[in-house]
Formats: sequence, structure tokens, C-alpha cells
Amino acid sequence: MLARDVPSAGSSAVGVRRVGVVSLGLIGGSVARRLVAQGVEVHAWNPSLPALEAAAADGVVPARTIAELCVAEPDVLLLAPPLRAMADVAREVAAHVRGGTVVTDAGSVKGAVARVVREAGLASRFVGAHPMAGTEQAGYAASDASLLDGARWALTLEDDTRLDAFCRVAELVTGPLGGVVRVTTPAVHDEAVALVSHVPHVVASELLRLVGGSDVTDLALALAAGSFRDGTRVAGTHPRRTEAMVTDNAAAVAPVLRRAAAELAALADALDAGAPVGAFFDEAAAVRAGARVAGPDDARTTLTLEESTWRAELLSRPTSLVVGADERTSAVTLTTP
Amino acid sequence: MLARDVPSAGSSAVGVRRVGVVSLGLIGGSVARRLVAQGVEVHAWNPSLPALEAAAADGVVPARTIAELCVAEPDVLLLAPPLRAMADVAREVAAHVRGGTVVTDAGSVKGAVARVVREAGLASRFVGAHPMAGTEQAGYAASDASLLDGARWALTLEDDTRLDAFCRVAELVTGPLGGVVRVTTPAVHDEAVALVSHVPHVVASELLRLVGGSDVTDLALALAAGSFRDGTRVAGTHPRRTEAMVTDNAAAVAPVLRRAAAELAALADALDAGAPVGAFFDEAAAVRAGARVAGPDDARTTLTLEESTWRAELLSRPTSLVVGADERTSAVTLTTP
Repeated sequence: MLARDVPSAGSSAVGVRRVGVVSLGLIGGSVARRLVAQGVEVHAWNPSLPALEAAAADGVVPARTIAELCVAEPDVLLLAPPLRAMADVAREVAAHVRGGTVVTDAGSVKGAVARVVREAGLASRFVGAHPMAGTEQAGYAASDASLLDGARWALTLEDDTRLDAFCRVAELVTGPLGGVVRVTTPAVHDEAVALVSHVPHVVASELLRLVGGSDVTDLALALAAGSFRDGTRVAGTHPRRTEAMVTDNAAAVAPVLRRAAAELAALADALDAGAPVGAFFDEAAAVRAGARVAGPDDARTTLTLEESTWRAELLSRPTSLVVGADERTSAVTLTTP
Repeated sequence: MLARDVPSAGSSAVGVRRVGVVSLGLIGGSVARRLVAQGVEVHAWNPSLPALEAAAADGVVPARTIAELCVAEPDVLLLAPPLRAMADVAREVAAHVRGGTVVTDAGSVKGAVARVVREAGLASRFVGAHPMAGTEQAGYAASDASLLDGARWALTLEDDTRLDAFCRVAELVTGPLGGVVRVTTPAVHDEAVALVSHVPHVVASELLRLVGGSDVTDLALALAAGSFRDGTRVAGTHPRRTEAMVTDNAAAVAPVLRRAAAELAALADALDAGAPVGAFFDEAAAVRAGARVAGPDDARTTLTLEESTWRAELLSRPTSLVVGADERTSAVTLTTP
């Protein structure tokens, strides 16, 4: 059902009143701060006590254990630990979660998280999430409610994702969290972020490695101008953080790197042979020119989701943006390019 | 001979009073405009008449032929045609150049220019130059005196480059042209710009090609954030211009692309094998951290160049910047990191 020119879904929603957060790092801490500021009741657990005490001073209700957090029966429980701790956290949550709590996460790789959540038996109440926000810092001390201003979140659907669970998480993200949502699947998400984030980080580092490995390092750096500065900017990310990105998403990153290697080697062959190379750059320009994805200010449509078709409906619109959602009515507001 | 705390070389130099310019494109036109504004007498020839007439209205003395330009006996004659026209221009200049005219150029690739200049018989009065400035536009209409404000110029030396010719071009660049100079050789220049300009352009295009060639183009573009924007910015250069860059410098670009391909494929292998990949990013970070090249505001030293040692002396300082030069005294002022 399509309805235009109606109030946005979620604009007056009051569905998500209590949120639980596991791990108060950069993202978990920023979510907690923002929700407290928005008047949402936030409960949190953190493995180390000082950050939990700091959060308590900031208005968060501290839980001594994950079990205690689950007993509070939050409407949404956000898992925001480091990826390597996700399996343990998911098992602990599965042992204690109760009532209508919907579980989501903030991991930057979605296939691996979906797997450990399913193994833990949480799939029926889970909706995967990845807020595309971050800084070079980490930890609760670096967290900041404004980090999430207008942030784009990827929400990931699987065949058994529940409509009400999706709507609740989308309502939380587009409501009190102040974000917008792209809907996708774990596998598509992981390939997409390999393409637009992880491989660009690798390539920026490779540009520096090429200079460092040459015989003319000093003069090259002396002549470097805008194209090199732009191309290597994200190589300023801490090496351990970039390493974690690409190893966590290795299954999606490696094939993209192989394609890049093959295409660069083919271009080198063409240059050596004096063969035409114009198509290489024309094809790139066409991708750039063809880019047309919805932003938050594009035309809005409100869509009431139906149980039998909602996943296909949303997944058929990869360039749309969900800017509002209402669990009570199963309505989402989308912008379209 | 080193002398500190003396007036900068070239600060009161009046050596270059008349300059000739072949081709009033973006760079030739910008040089002409700037020199006219600085009170230098500028003569120019251009293959098409409208740009020459526009330049004449801007204060340039128009020449009907390259021969006529040579007869004016400019102190410096700048060759700024497209690279593909350089051989013809060099032959025509060689047939008519006279007196003490020193010849320089503005080509973005120096090995090929040095070759055609030598074949034309101009090597004894030639000093290669590459102003590291430009915009996406071309032609006299797009030229602008301010394009060259503080521009870095690479000046290239060969075994038979004359000291007086080098000093005269350096005096012109650091004086009325308002630029600074890195001194190098044609081969080192071409490898360095492959590393910091041409290959970064290729890689930016490759990042777009990877997205365009994937099954998830739309979602990838929808999730693209800062790292992708930065990494693909120079892919906005016109495809024909990037194509010309890499084909003109193919001999230096192709080996760098092969190294990139090999290192990206090796990283993919390591990811597939679950092997450690941290060193890949640590090595890149070390290149970034080790970058230390002189800027115009670093400590100054004035050096009087000696006939027998000046090339080795200047080439041993790839991270220094020449900020002043005086042909009469063979003195250059350098900054050192």
C-alpha cells in the first residue's frame, strides 16, 4: 500500500521506551548518550567498571551482568562489543533474554555476526545493524551523542527476520537515534563495504607502500600534491583498526583485491604494448556519472509493509533510504532518488 | 660555499627581462599572464589565432611564427605545447633559436621531452621544467596568473645541463613566476610522478570500476562514505586527460602498476589463508610517518654553486626546496627540512 503526502511513519511513534546496550565503546557509548539525551531509558553492561560508572553518572542504568541487563526486558538490546567477543556475548544473551526484547548489533561485518547470532539461537528476535559512523578513537571516553547525527545505518534482513522486529529497530534508528537506514542482506552488506570502505583503505595504504618501496621515495614525497593526499588520506587510520576491518571481512575483501590486481596488471600490459587504455577510464567515469542514490531530502513515500512481501519489497530498493518507521502500523517512510 | 643569514639569492635579481612562450594553453597562458603582470616583456606564439589575439589584448607581444619568436631573442623560451606536439616544436625552435636564449618547457613527463629536445639539437641550452599546477580546464581562456602562486616546479638536470641556464630558469621560476623548485633528473621525475600522481589517478578509477563491475553497485554507492569519496576524488579528472597522463608516462607507470597488482594479490592470498596481514598496514604507516620534505618556510641556506659539483650538490638534496636563484652569482637559496 502506497500513500503519499501523509505524515512520516514514526514521526510520533513512542514504541521504544527502554534500550539495553552491551559494551560501552565508541558506538555503544554514543548510542547510550544519545538515547539518554532523548529521554529513552538506557540500561547498559560493560566488561570494565570505570566506563560503566562514567555512563551511570551520565544517566545510564548500570547492569552488573548481561543476565541482569536481559532481565530488565529492554524493547531493544544492542550488542556493541568488539567483533571477536560477539559469539560469547550472543551466547550469554541467548541464555537470559526474555519477553519481547528485540536484539540488534553494531558490528561492521554482518555475515559473521548473523552466523554467531543464529548459532546462539537468537535469530528469531534479531535484526543486524551497522551504523556507518566512527572516528579514529575508541572507548566510552571518546563516545559522543553527536557522532550519530544523521548517520546512515545498514539494517540486514534474513529469510526469517520478523517484520515487527525490523520495524522496531528502524523506529529506534530513525527516531531517537536520529539516523537513516539502508536495507540489505548480510552478504550484500559485506561485499558493499568491502568495495566502498575496506578496499579503499587497502589501496590508500598500497599507494604509500609503493612510494616507500621505490628508489625515489624522497623526491616522490616532495612532489606529492592533491591527488596523493586525497588518495592516501584514509591510510591515516590506525594500522590495527584497518587490519581488523579487512580480516573480519576477509571473505568479501579478498576477491575484490584479486579483481583489482588483475585489472591493474592488465592495464600495465596494455601500456607496455602501446594498446588503447581509454576504456579503463571511461568505464570508471560512467560508474561515477551513474551514481544516483536517495538522500534524506529526496521525495518521500510512506509504505505499509505486508507480512508476505515486506522483505522483497524493501530489498528491491537498494538506493532508497528509510527515514521513518512505526512498529504499530508496520509503516515505513522512504526517500527515493 | 655555504653562507647563512645573507639575503636570499634572486631577491634583487633583474636577469630575466624578456620571455618567449610557445603555445598559450592553460600553463603557457598562465605563465604569460603572470609575467606580464610582473612587468616582464612576454612574446608568444600560438597555433590558433583567437587565443593569440586575446593574449595580445592582455599585454603579450604576438609572434606570427616560432621563427619570429626566436628572433626576439628572449632570455628564456618556454615550450608549452601538448606533449604530442613537442617534437615538432623543438625542431622548429632549433632551426631558429639564436643568441643566449635558454629553452625550457612545461611538459608533465620529462624523459620523453628531454629525448626530443636532444634529438632536435637543443640540449645545450635546455633545462626541463614541470610546474605541478593545473586544473580540470584547458586553453588560454582558462589560464590564470594565480594558478602559479607558490607552485612547485620540478627542474630536471642532465649531465650536460649548463649551470648558467639552470640558474636563469630557477631565477625566473622563483622570481617573477612566484614558484619554488625541486631539482631532479628526468628519469627520477617520471618515476616520482608515476608514484604520486599517475598511479593514484589509476587507482581512483579502479575503485569506481570495482563498484561498477560488482553485483551490488547500487547498495555499495548507497553506503559509500568518506573513504570512498576521498579515494575516488581524482577519478573526476576528464578520462582523456588521465589517459594522456598514463600513456605519456607509460614506461614509469606500468612497472608501478605491476608492483601494486602483485602486492594486492599477495594480500588477498594472506587473507584467504588467515595469515597475518598487519605488516602491510604498518609498512604504509611508516612511509607516512617518515615523510619529511622542506616547505618554503623551513630554514634557509644560500649556496654558491661551483661548475664542477653543482649537479651532484643539488641532486643530493631531493627533499630541499630552491626558493631563490641568481644567475649572475650562481647562488641558490634552499630550504631544508
